Amino acid sequence: MPIDPQSEIEVTGFSWVPPFAQGHVRDLRVRWALEEAGMSYRTRLFHAMEQRPDYYFTEQPFGQVPAYDDGTVQLFESGAIVLHIGRDCETLLPTDTASRARATAWLIAALNSVEPMIGELNTIDIFASGEEWARLRRPSLEERVRGRLTRLSDWLGEKDYLEGQFTAGDLMMASVLRGLERSGLMNEQPRVAQYYERCLARPAFSRALAAQMADFTQDAKEGVAA
Amino acid sequence: MPIDPQSEIEVTGFSWVPPFAQGHVRDLRVRWALEEAGMSYRTRLFHAMEQRPDYYFTEQPFGQVPAYDDGTVQLFESGAIVLHIGRDCETLLPTDTASRARATAWLIAALNSVEPMIGELNTIDIFASGEEWARLRRPSLEERVRGRLTRLSDWLGEKDYLEGQFTAGDLMMASVLRGLERSGLMNEQPRVAQYYERCLARPAFSRALAAQMADFTQDAKEGVAA
Repeated sequence: MPIDPQSEIEVTGFSWVPPFAQGHVRDLRVRWALEEAGMSYRTRLFHAMEQRPDYYFTEQPFGQVPAYDDGTVQLFESGAIVLHIGRDCETLLPTDTASRARATAWLIAALNSVEPMIGELNTIDIFASGEEWARLRRPSLEERVRGRLTRLSDWLGEKDYLEGQFTAGDLMMASVLRGLERSGLMNEQPRVAQYYERCLARPAFSRALAAQMADFTQDAKEGVAA
Repeated sequence: MPIDPQSEIEVTGFSWVPPFAQGHVRDLRVRWALEEAGMSYRTRLFHAMEQRPDYYFTEQPFGQVPAYDDGTVQLFESGAIVLHIGRDCETLLPTDTASRARATAWLIAALNSVEPMIGELNTIDIFASGEEWARLRRPSLEERVRGRLTRLSDWLGEKDYLEGQFTAGDLMMASVLRGLERSGLMNEQPRVAQYYERCLARPAFSRALAAQMADFTQDAKEGVAA
């Protein structure tokens, strides 16, 4: 769906982030879910390097993005927002109790059992690159990530998606795995790499990514700190 | 509720973990939710240091605990299990859409915005204690944890719980904050420390903790590696 300034749904993202983060800001997960659900939205954008206004911390307690407001529900945490959007979208959350619970389990597995170690790896490779602790820590952490990817590969087997059909769990797992692109570790697990490409080939993902990229200011696109 | 060998709900936990982990295994979150909901359960227990049987990876893709099975729904990830239990328990998940979504947001905030850095701190303090990278990394990580605690304190203000009334979000946030007991960092934020004590003072938590502790074998209680 195109962004619609009249939509009741407001998603908060960034107008500027450093080039390496463009296309990786977490409002992308929410935009993707909205695209899967066929729901339009409008955006409110902050500059990532500028202090968030005080009132924003009453909407997002940690000052992060995304935040979400549809007039009835005001939310933060991309996982919770995706679950909320998914309530009325059978693609994201199947209606039968067991399947819905499984999709939720995979969404939370992505956020709590996979993303933390990928986040740690990116802290090392991006923010602490060159630091001694990062150099010393990296090998053991990389092994932990490898372990998770092996388990994911075993689980996937011949399945196209984690539970056979695409759900919000795949949306979140693929979103989290994007944090491994820099490392190349996914290439060691072809099933995971193919699964990842399958998720990202969804038209809804492409539209969401294009919309996030289009929202960055010209300064951001030129890689200029404002 | 007492553990009931005839219950339809099976929770998988451990019969043995090292002493420092006793009372901290994640099935505690599920037991706590079941106690809040007044639902009985039975347990299936593995020895933490022994290889999990192959079939277990078809139930819990990463081989971790807890796993959950109520005959209709088979689940993993403590966050997803707590949400599933909460569907029919207004204490855990209020019935109106907005409040339920907010409780979910806090549960996921605990798992994705707070627990990862607490987990990193515990990796340093427990598993990598004495390693050079851990010594070098600790100060900057501690500052990140402090930042989160400050935000949590600001959010809590004069509220008893994150959204005023206790929900599954508080269950998970308090569970996650237990990982900070060793560090003493919560003492720097009295509002967070009082909130934490308030959550843990709930009778349902005490019953859950007692049940987990009772399930460890005598060897585990004596701190003896089997």
